[in-house]
Amino acid sequence: MTAFTPKNPDWRRQVQDSFARQTFMTTLGVRIAALEPGRCELAVDRRGDLCQQHGYLHAGVTTTLADTAAGYAAFSLMPARSSVLTSELKINLLNPAAGERLVAVAEVMKPGRTLTVVRADVFGETAGERRIVATMLATMMCLADTPEQG
Amino acid sequence: MTAFTPKNPDWRRQVQDSFARQTFMTTLGVRIAALEPGRCELAVDRRGDLCQQHGYLHAGVTTTLADTAAGYAAFSLMPARSSVLTSELKINLLNPAAGERLVAVAEVMKPGRTLTVVRADVFGETAGERRIVATMLATMMCLADTPEQG
Amino acid sequence: MTAFTPKNPDWRRQVQDSFARQTFMTTLGVRIAALEPGRCELAVDRRGDLCQQHGYLHAGVTTTLADTAAGYAAFSLMPARSSVLTSELKINLLNPAAGERLVAVAEVMKPGRTLTVVRADVFGETAGERRIVATMLATMMCLADTPEQG
Amino acid sequence: MTAFTPKNPDWRRQVQDSFARQTFMTTLGVRIAALEPGRCELAVDRRGDLCQQHGYLHAGVTTTLADTAAGYAAFSLMPARSSVLTSELKINLLNPAAGERLVAVAEVMKPGRTLTVVRADVFGETAGERRIVATMLATMMCLADTPEQG
Repeated sequence: MTAFTPKNPDWRRQVQDSFARQTFMTTLGVRIAALEPGRCELAVDRRGDLCQQHGYLHAGVTTTLADTAAGYAAFSLMPARSSVLTSELKINLLNPAAGERLVAVAEVMKPGRTLTVVRADVFGETAGERRIVATMLATMMCLADTPEQG
Repeated sequence: MTAFTPKNPDWRRQVQDSFARQTFMTTLGVRIAALEPGRCELAVDRRGDLCQQHGYLHAGVTTTLADTAAGYAAFSLMPARSSVLTSELKINLLNPAAGERLVAVAEVMKPGRTLTVVRADVFGETAGERRIVATMLATMMCLADTPEQG
Repeated sequence: MTAFTPKNPDWRRQVQDSFARQTFMTTLGVRIAALEPGRCELAVDRRGDLCQQHGYLHAGVTTTLADTAAGYAAFSLMPARSSVLTSELKINLLNPAAGERLVAVAEVMKPGRTLTVVRADVFGETAGERRIVATMLATMMCLADTPEQG
Repeated sequence: MTAFTPKNPDWRRQVQDSFARQTFMTTLGVRIAALEPGRCELAVDRRGDLCQQHGYLHAGVTTTLADTAAGYAAFSLMPARSSVLTSELKINLLNPAAGERLVAVAEVMKPGRTLTVVRADVFGETAGERRIVATMLATMMCLADTPEQG
């Protein structure tokens, strides 16, 4: 992995504050598991009310987790007073979303002034062992001078 | 639009029963708005606990809605005693997910014995007026002889 | 289809000149079949040296045709003194690329100052009859004040 | 990288023979640079007749190279008497396709009886140094009992 230098010395709080404002993360019970410049890991526990018709976690949960991890991996490298939006994402679902929890690991592949391309893998974790569930490729957009909070 | 002939005379109940088993749909408050062979429309009302950091509906909600509509558009054309899985999806987010509700309209582009390609558009709706929010292209997989319910 | 108003009154020449500079188009024998603001149709005849292992036109030819049509559909709406780049594309191959020629029809879904999202369908054409071969969703990027030609 | 066990003891010849039948590869001057079970590396030299409007290699060439490498990475793990088709692909273009040659490195992420998901990166190479140009995520389909050659 490439090491990235954040443009905002306060990048960690920038990410945490934005994440805390996403009410959907609270609804799903998603938490930040790890955070570095250009890298974000999010986790969500299996819950009976987040499932698809076969009792696995819904593909929408898997995708939401990967998308949000990718967004914050990108946001960690963006300048102060900016905000981040998902431009597009593509995900391949490789295995059923089984396990006690899902973990999404997102890493920036190419940071840019406007567009940042991020790769994210999602794993099902049981008793500390991880099995890949999905892989995503996404483009995140930086909106400059649009601070997320007044 | 092409008119499709369902293989399962009981296709409507097949879709409705599967949808009813998706607990995540209940959690989000998603409902079936329209259903035809090869076509599915789902709707979800705006709710404060489904938002991203700017107060719009989360991209994960938009994607979940489009993915699920696409899955059931495909499933409506699949034979009895089969089940449906998302193989992959790609979504472009075109406008903020604003409006009183989101509506996803999914239509099968190419049905197949194993793979079905579906297109879905998501609209934000306010006072009956629709504005496009996102567009998706997805591949759904048919698992034969794996009835969803015992 | 929405009707688009071009920002550059000379949009048609802007597209044609750029297309003429793409040597790969000459190599493949691609020609502009139709051009409107936000819409571009390209065609290529079947040739024995453009095939994959089963004798159909190579998926790379199909993708190149769709990508280029999408790029020029977007470019037709961009201001003077700009240039266009593909940011990303996703294509689903629906049927073998059979027929006497391939025709890609690209239409802008959402124009933007920086990013333009375009949809393109590719058809195989034989004796004037078209059958769908592939469908694409792509993001094109506008580079302002980078005129393509000195 | 995971090590994969090929199902066809004659996997290498299976790949080479199929590749040799792709006339488009000859037209572009693509060659196999490396081949292992589940992994394929293809290379193409820069040529003036394969360019886009700014003189870089055309995105269609980059995409063709990645798609074909991905297809053969998947095909190397498929049983004898089968053939391979691209189901869908998504590519993000990260940097201009500069350099003396392009090299695509494709690796299977998830092999399957019907679908195989492959990741491919494309690099521009100059004087032995590689810079990333694009990254792809693709789904390859196995058609059983459809030997490619009579």
